[in-house]
Amino acid sequence: MKLYSYFRSSAAYRVRIALNLKNIDHELVTVNLLKSEQQSDEYLAKNPQGLLPALETEQGVLAQSLAILEWLEETHPETPLLTGDAWQKAQIRNLCYAVACDIHPIDNLRVLKYLANDLGVDEEAKTTWYKHWVEVGFQSIEKLLDEANTFCVGNKPTLADVCLVPQVFNALRFKVDMTKYPKIAAVYEQCNKLDAFIDAAPQNQPDAI
Amino acid sequence: MKLYSYFRSSAAYRVRIALNLKNIDHELVTVNLLKSEQQSDEYLAKNPQGLLPALETEQGVLAQSLAILEWLEETHPETPLLTGDAWQKAQIRNLCYAVACDIHPIDNLRVLKYLANDLGVDEEAKTTWYKHWVEVGFQSIEKLLDEANTFCVGNKPTLADVCLVPQVFNALRFKVDMTKYPKIAAVYEQCNKLDAFIDAAPQNQPDAI
Repeated sequence: MKLYSYFRSSAAYRVRIALNLKNIDHELVTVNLLKSEQQSDEYLAKNPQGLLPALETEQGVLAQSLAILEWLEETHPETPLLTGDAWQKAQIRNLCYAVACDIHPIDNLRVLKYLANDLGVDEEAKTTWYKHWVEVGFQSIEKLLDEANTFCVGNKPTLADVCLVPQVFNALRFKVDMTKYPKIAAVYEQCNKLDAFIDAAPQNQPDAI
Repeated sequence: MKLYSYFRSSAAYRVRIALNLKNIDHELVTVNLLKSEQQSDEYLAKNPQGLLPALETEQGVLAQSLAILEWLEETHPETPLLTGDAWQKAQIRNLCYAVACDIHPIDNLRVLKYLANDLGVDEEAKTTWYKHWVEVGFQSIEKLLDEANTFCVGNKPTLADVCLVPQVFNALRFKVDMTKYPKIAAVYEQCNKLDAFIDAAPQNQPDAI
């Protein structure tokens, strides 16, 4: 498999973690979002959606990080990341979407670019925007976590951790005060003791600058 | 089951369609987003995330429309909406997320309110913003659809249609020119011949104004 990735892409970071947790051998192909390489003809031929990540498999190219995560789960059930009965799976997915639908899309690079370039929003207001959506989202997620658990759901990493950790990484870049979210901060710390998370971190990617 | 819904909530509309397609008996409880009833203590006690929809089940309350859709699929497999092998499921989910992660969150009411109230964006620029994210998303989705199919994937409705139809409904409200997306428009027309979609439509809800 080939993963098309950019070191700071939060969605690519999710897939990097899952591939590592599942020990799936893969090649990393870097695509520079800042240089808009995801809009190049070469990349669009792979992923017409023009977004990261994409996973090239024997069957073809898969897009959308969450679709990739669910597909990996179905085709590589070893080290399951979506565990338990239907109810627990719903709790795991609830947390995934609380990040992947309610926070990340609004704070994505392309949205921040639109704010600056098309609406003339200055750097300070852009940072306020970024923090606002992270904080609203983290307030919800903090309520959903149980401090008796080591990870988001239970005592092993699940897709919820796979989605949450990249969002916390980004929040820290934007200097969000994580002391307000002790349960999220504890999960983040716990995950980052594991090689699968460490090796997937932006600063440990070949294209890190 | 009780579905907490607002007639114009795109995410609630998705769940309404799925419940209808699966013939699941349920009660509708309306929550007025324009009056911020989703932030009332009463509603927050049900769904601490303070967003619509929520589904009250015998086991408890589920939030996040996509988590609800996946849970319904697992617990009520009759009239399956996530069909085929792992690869086809990935294509269905890809389309779901192309709407639910890449378009809807950025054009959500709370984001439009922030643009107006916190950033002083005027009505015209807000409409341009709305259309921009719909058009970027629809351009991608149009490429992913196959005109040989009656619905998004194959010849029966799937979760992809469940997610796409509410987004098209909203796009039409904002006067997006759908003639640019003939495959999406054809799927929308096809879906809206079915009672499950018609009965779930905003204008047919008890709280429609």
